[in-house]
Amino acid sequence: MYKLTFLPDGKKIEASEGSTILESSQAAEVPINSLCGGNGVCGRCRVQVADGKVRADARSMSFLSKDEIKAGYVLACQTKLDGDMEIIIPPESIPKEPQILLEGIQVQYSNPEKIQLHKVPTDPANIFDPLIQSIYLEMGSPTPNDNVSDLDRIIRELRKKTGYGSFEICLSCLRDLALELRENDWKITVTIARYANVWQILEIKGGDVIKDSYGAAVDIGTTTVVVQLVHMKSGNVAGVAGNHNPQNRYGEDVIARMIYACGREENGLSHLNNAVIKNINELIASLASEKGINQEDIHAMVAAGNTTMSHLFMNLKPCTIRLEPYVPTATVYPRVSAKDLNLKINPDGLIVVVPSVSSYVGGDIVAGILATGIADRPETRVLIDVGTNGEVALGNSEWLVCCSASAGPAFEGGGIRHGMRATRGAIEKFTIENGEVHYKTISNAKPRGICGSGLIDCLYEFARNQIIAGDGTFRIEAGKGRIIEKDGETQFILAYSPETEIGEDLVITQSDIYHLVQSKGAIFAAIKSLLDYVGLKFEDIATFYVAGGFGSSLDIQKSIGIGLLPDIDPQRIQFVGNSSLMGARMCLLSAHVARRAAHIARMMTNIELSTYLPFMDEYVAAMFLPHTDRKLFPSVTY
Amino acid sequence: MYKLTFLPDGKKIEASEGSTILESSQAAEVPINSLCGGNGVCGRCRVQVADGKVRADARSMSFLSKDEIKAGYVLACQTKLDGDMEIIIPPESIPKEPQILLEGIQVQYSNPEKIQLHKVPTDPANIFDPLIQSIYLEMGSPTPNDNVSDLDRIIRELRKKTGYGSFEICLSCLRDLALELRENDWKITVTIARYANVWQILEIKGGDVIKDSYGAAVDIGTTTVVVQLVHMKSGNVAGVAGNHNPQNRYGEDVIARMIYACGREENGLSHLNNAVIKNINELIASLASEKGINQEDIHAMVAAGNTTMSHLFMNLKPCTIRLEPYVPTATVYPRVSAKDLNLKINPDGLIVVVPSVSSYVGGDIVAGILATGIADRPETRVLIDVGTNGEVALGNSEWLVCCSASAGPAFEGGGIRHGMRATRGAIEKFTIENGEVHYKTISNAKPRGICGSGLIDCLYEFARNQIIAGDGTFRIEAGKGRIIEKDGETQFILAYSPETEIGEDLVITQSDIYHLVQSKGAIFAAIKSLLDYVGLKFEDIATFYVAGGFGSSLDIQKSIGIGLLPDIDPQRIQFVGNSSLMGARMCLLSAHVARRAAHIARMMTNIELSTYLPFMDEYVAAMFLPHTDRKLFPSVTY
Repeated sequence: MYKLTFLPDGKKIEASEGSTILESSQAAEVPINSLCGGNGVCGRCRVQVADGKVRADARSMSFLSKDEIKAGYVLACQTKLDGDMEIIIPPESIPKEPQILLEGIQVQYSNPEKIQLHKVPTDPANIFDPLIQSIYLEMGSPTPNDNVSDLDRIIRELRKKTGYGSFEICLSCLRDLALELRENDWKITVTIARYANVWQILEIKGGDVIKDSYGAAVDIGTTTVVVQLVHMKSGNVAGVAGNHNPQNRYGEDVIARMIYACGREENGLSHLNNAVIKNINELIASLASEKGINQEDIHAMVAAGNTTMSHLFMNLKPCTIRLEPYVPTATVYPRVSAKDLNLKINPDGLIVVVPSVSSYVGGDIVAGILATGIADRPETRVLIDVGTNGEVALGNSEWLVCCSASAGPAFEGGGIRHGMRATRGAIEKFTIENGEVHYKTISNAKPRGICGSGLIDCLYEFARNQIIAGDGTFRIEAGKGRIIEKDGETQFILAYSPETEIGEDLVITQSDIYHLVQSKGAIFAAIKSLLDYVGLKFEDIATFYVAGGFGSSLDIQKSIGIGLLPDIDPQRIQFVGNSSLMGARMCLLSAHVARRAAHIARMMTNIELSTYLPFMDEYVAAMFLPHTDRKLFPSVTY
Repeated sequence: MYKLTFLPDGKKIEASEGSTILESSQAAEVPINSLCGGNGVCGRCRVQVADGKVRADARSMSFLSKDEIKAGYVLACQTKLDGDMEIIIPPESIPKEPQILLEGIQVQYSNPEKIQLHKVPTDPANIFDPLIQSIYLEMGSPTPNDNVSDLDRIIRELRKKTGYGSFEICLSCLRDLALELRENDWKITVTIARYANVWQILEIKGGDVIKDSYGAAVDIGTTTVVVQLVHMKSGNVAGVAGNHNPQNRYGEDVIARMIYACGREENGLSHLNNAVIKNINELIASLASEKGINQEDIHAMVAAGNTTMSHLFMNLKPCTIRLEPYVPTATVYPRVSAKDLNLKINPDGLIVVVPSVSSYVGGDIVAGILATGIADRPETRVLIDVGTNGEVALGNSEWLVCCSASAGPAFEGGGIRHGMRATRGAIEKFTIENGEVHYKTISNAKPRGICGSGLIDCLYEFARNQIIAGDGTFRIEAGKGRIIEKDGETQFILAYSPETEIGEDLVITQSDIYHLVQSKGAIFAAIKSLLDYVGLKFEDIATFYVAGGFGSSLDIQKSIGIGLLPDIDPQRIQFVGNSSLMGARMCLLSAHVARRAAHIARMMTNIELSTYLPFMDEYVAAMFLPHTDRKLFPSVTY
């Protein structure tokens, strides 16, 4: 065993010879960035060994400058322990703290009051019909002439009160039932959930405790996990909490996590499953404690996520999702009890995962379609979710098609030299006025990097000011000294070293620009291909809903300006924030909507862009600012 | 802590001050009889303290003769430890070893080949329709044009092959499905079970393994537990094993066990539940190992037992069953998975408990009605189950009524001075010819006691030879010296001390006789009351089926002779042995029959004899040999 000290925090741990710095840090819960799951291909886990010997290795060296190598920088994932060490984790290698809710800056979670269940106009019986119902019963006590079993007495009363026919009961509800009934003078609250055409009794409690019942809506994002607690009687949101998905430590995007779950790591799947379950449990525990809610009183949970996240949540191997022909284990997930997944709500609580459409169009998109009501109205509308995978769904009450394009993590800050998520210190706004550079960071902190909305601004401002050509190549002469050559690459300095938190110039490199142009091209090409597939034009679309992590900080005009979104009246483009969470909550509050989710997932036609030949032409054409075909962007004037 | 040595085995244990000898022996798994669950009211846990001091106590003394008290006899349940002790457990206080199957003497388990599923003539679609089905599928592998999820591919193929509409899957089946399918070239065996109108997938295995699937039928008797393993494809019985219900150590009859489960013992219910689950697991393990069956391949279990046994099997508190107005927690038991009850078959295997009718008419009787086909034919028939509770069911395809009478444990050897169960050394046959006593013991061993069939013989022979009067009182003058007075009670010596295993005279006492007359009176009165209730006479009954532990060793003529069974043509009385087990197996082999069990349990009218006034008159009239009303027994000539 060797002694390791991690700076700047000074945490001391012991770790065994042969393990890597990254493995040791993960075991000790010292956070270090890792995008590729420890495979030495992303270069995000750079650390500086201040004291101790390290062996230089080829992989690490390709990510480091000569000065850095001299200064003891290594990749934590490639460096095995060979003695005691003191390790400095530089700011860019420290995962950013969750601050989503604390500062209310990044994701603008959909305002709970905005959910309109009557967005489903095709359902005439649009009553309040939650996934679980608590019913209060007052019964007479048994007599010699009426000595049916306790269970039969309850079911008889439930039939009278609800009009439903068949009931089943969970075993644990029966165990102490005799005592519960008699101690509470035959006055009880029964919580039931529908399953096929049978109602299942999940819980029986003494007295009238209807108002104690809660449900949880959960959005399991690759990057962020958000939990809402919903009061089942009123439908009101009691609280919402979110943080970064801790699976991040095993790989930053879904592909890296699939590789980790299915690769040589023996318990890879368990690590990922445990991470997300633990995270949800912690969010629930903190919300419940804050709001004075007993976790046992949370009787249901609806979770929405992409197909990989849904598999990892249910502890299913996601190993074939990324392999042609992209077949997931399941798209409709079995209903399970909370105890089956170690979720710390009522152990018999109902867990529903919103069904997926395909390997790359998941329950988050289905939930988004529920939230936007696309499948409920005759006019044709589009939902775009911008992330590492850009998903596009298109349709109306008659038909639905969808597709997904691998856009890369650029808009989430991945693969970008100083890219970061939308947290404290990220440049979120950027303009060039009269040749002067202006930026705004989140929390007005010293800049540490640049996030998605900032990158869109940059791309637009560079194009508008002719700092880059249509293909994204820097025009060095237009850079007014901010464009430099360093480490063999052209770079634009956004903020000079003295202004920044990171102690060096904060830059955008030429390859960053190319990545961004590729990403925006993939998303626009997906939208265009899907429209062409069904023979529609942009003007045929009533509304474009945009969902995704950068939400309200996204500048629509600039997004159109770089050719990410189509050039239509910005009034027809609407941000819907976290529509996945909104859809999950709608399922929780309406069994009808939950059944509709399964129906939507089944009826939606998935277009596999990788085998749809016209997509590649669209993609190539879209890798230009704003687009090779300028007629598509008449309003863009640069 | 004190040191205890138990003889004759010599087992040494340590136990703490204040616990009783019985508690200490139970903790150390040293078996000592206990009928009342340790309440000091049955006197079955007599032990002799050979070394050590004991305090005399009032309860113990009432069960012991002066000589015994002098010799150090005490009741184990009443005697608290007060120092080191050496304790001799006399033969009559040692629970008898299971030997049911080893010697094939006691219960004659229904011959598996006798089950006729077409005993259900009212079912036109009487096909082989087992509770679980294994289906072999060969599927094409996914292509870019057909890349539905693995689960959807399986369900699509299942729909084609079975014609069923809806399927659900257990979570654990999904976990490694992707690998399983691909490693087995898309050839798999799927095991499904019906639930409401959905089919649930319980297991998916590579290749064609249909022939590996087994089910278990279990009869959970208060006294005996029997397991049959059934090959699901052929319906054949692969093996059968049984032993005594180890709950016995906590109380010999259902009342004692209810008291133990609900009394001051903190984990009473757990002890009882664990005991029966462990026992069933052991029986299954030994059968599976003997027959070369993998326990994971046992996909379903149907268990039948009385209402208390069913509650204890499912770990439900049976606390209100024995209290007026006799309300059980449930009569229809939830379907659970094997893992929910720690049963060591396939963890997702389906567990079905045959529904009960009421607190004292259980699933064993419902199973018996299935096995005898009483509910399937127009002629009216009767099923009698003779045990501590005598249950009587009566009816035809149009209607069913039932009742239960507390007959006491006399016919099972309980509450009888030298009574014992039908195991090695029990007198099972007894005659008096020309004044000479003849008896036969099980295994022809030296007599240790007398069992149910022997007691019926005694009662009949005593009555026929005028050794007892009509009310059961000994006529001392007719005893030819075998009738003596000892310890203040009149006794008939069945076997003299030198012939016996127990080292003393083996006797039947006056109070034994009275207990037997009460027991037979209760059962006959129950039959008669139930017939009167529906306005029928004995001659209206096509067949009397008799089920129960003493099975084939019961002498029909003598049973009529003492007035236990009605005086009709013995051809119309038929022994059906363990009809509970037979009915459980029928449920396993036919989902139709399993649904029918629930229907029968619901449609059967339960007559509560304790509140049915005419019963008490019948009972009093029947407490005479053969009966106060001799016209009811014309063929009985003594």
